Amino acid sequence: MANLKVAVCQMKIEKEKENNLKKAGEMISEAVKKGARLVVLPEIFNAPYQTDILPSYAETYPGPTTLFLQKKAKEHKIYLVGGTIPEKDSEGKIYNSSFIFDDKGDLKGIYRKAHLFDVDIPDKITFRESDVFAAGDEINVIPHPQIPFSVLICYDCRFPEWAKLAALKGAKMLIIPAAFSLKTGKDHFELLMRCRAVDNQVYVIAASPARNQEASFKVWGHSMIVDPWGKVIAKGGSGEEVILATLDPSLVDKIRQELPLLKQTRVKLVEGEK
Amino acid sequence: MANLKVAVCQMKIEKEKENNLKKAGEMISEAVKKGARLVVLPEIFNAPYQTDILPSYAETYPGPTTLFLQKKAKEHKIYLVGGTIPEKDSEGKIYNSSFIFDDKGDLKGIYRKAHLFDVDIPDKITFRESDVFAAGDEINVIPHPQIPFSVLICYDCRFPEWAKLAALKGAKMLIIPAAFSLKTGKDHFELLMRCRAVDNQVYVIAASPARNQEASFKVWGHSMIVDPWGKVIAKGGSGEEVILATLDPSLVDKIRQELPLLKQTRVKLVEGEK
Repeated sequence: MANLKVAVCQMKIEKEKENNLKKAGEMISEAVKKGARLVVLPEIFNAPYQTDILPSYAETYPGPTTLFLQKKAKEHKIYLVGGTIPEKDSEGKIYNSSFIFDDKGDLKGIYRKAHLFDVDIPDKITFRESDVFAAGDEINVIPHPQIPFSVLICYDCRFPEWAKLAALKGAKMLIIPAAFSLKTGKDHFELLMRCRAVDNQVYVIAASPARNQEASFKVWGHSMIVDPWGKVIAKGGSGEEVILATLDPSLVDKIRQELPLLKQTRVKLVEGEK
Repeated sequence: MANLKVAVCQMKIEKEKENNLKKAGEMISEAVKKGARLVVLPEIFNAPYQTDILPSYAETYPGPTTLFLQKKAKEHKIYLVGGTIPEKDSEGKIYNSSFIFDDKGDLKGIYRKAHLFDVDIPDKITFRESDVFAAGDEINVIPHPQIPFSVLICYDCRFPEWAKLAALKGAKMLIIPAAFSLKTGKDHFELLMRCRAVDNQVYVIAASPARNQEASFKVWGHSMIVDPWGKVIAKGGSGEEVILATLDPSLVDKIRQELPLLKQTRVKLVEGEK
């Protein structure tokens, strides 16, 4: 099977939604120019990551941001994982959601962050995402002709059973828009992304925003692409950049044949229960 | 709560069972002399790790090796995790088992490796543990006055849902006797041990044998002790040595309060099913 060139647009997020869409559009064009056929945007790419103002950026589907994503996917004939945005459903609940479009511009899936970032690390970071967002409760596999994938969002990646569920359902790649903080990013970002790849024998694409020194929530950056043996094959810094890598779909099957971890799993994972 | 000093005896395994017990006894004495109150031996510490000859080393309980462990635990007044040995049950089935004794010499638990190492990496390593061993099917928590713990054995640690099950059952430490190969050790040993610590917010003690250049199966070594934030706090080389660290039981609770990963888990894990 042919290789697949992928890209992460590690973009700096600003206050104005329009500016963010414009920037995303420019970086998607750059990624496509460099050969990418699947492009990933970061977590909350159309708004600053501040719980107090996020609701004012929320859109129902279809809305300005999702129409923008659809147009870009169709225009460039690419799979586009639209990072995440605040999504408002028909009942008015807001989710941290990823919209995924295929190369015809058709919506292939919506993933809603299932594990909300409610943490309190004294002197480092306190954040209560559940003040704003409702939690999704389903992990899904997005069909792709070369590498079917699941989207996880940021904090989800700390729950290894969630990633494993995706692999058991058929995902051969995990795409993870993720805005880690400076502290947890430095200590855990690469470790978690590499280990999720190794646990599940999948490619991992982790897409962070670029660091914005003026933002109240400063992100780690360092978006990366990891192969199914856990090797980092592309990695960004903390600034704005397009990160590219070429993936070999057969590597997933080869490694799963060598170490049959999915077949040897002994625990039944039941979604949506506790 | 008082700190707990722990040790790994990274011993070189030889052909003669008696020599292995003698060596284990010497290294346990060294660990105790240096202040350890909980001592861990490596995987298959009383026999060479060769599937064709392992059955001839198998013992029923109580047997020479388990009596030796019991005596050492009582003599030194330590918790002793007796690495693993080939254990024969009353039906003649053989398991890769860990016997755990408390500081009075009482048997506190037996853990039987649940995930057998059946792998085939061309030109690197081919191994079929299931030719010899039956698989255990239960993860248990060993009571300890400072840090209750679970034992996982080597390949088990590649199954993150198994480790998580231990944490959900109450383990605050994972003790992992593990003889990784040179290839998988170099690429994955530290990554997996650190990530299991971070996923579950537990201390991890990974106990490898020392490398024996004359053995048919050459092990990675590099036993390590990792704190619940994923920091390696002690690490060995490839040779014979005692590796020590002082653990702070309150660190587990502190980190679990900051990032409440166990409480936030959304997937139900059901043991012993598929």
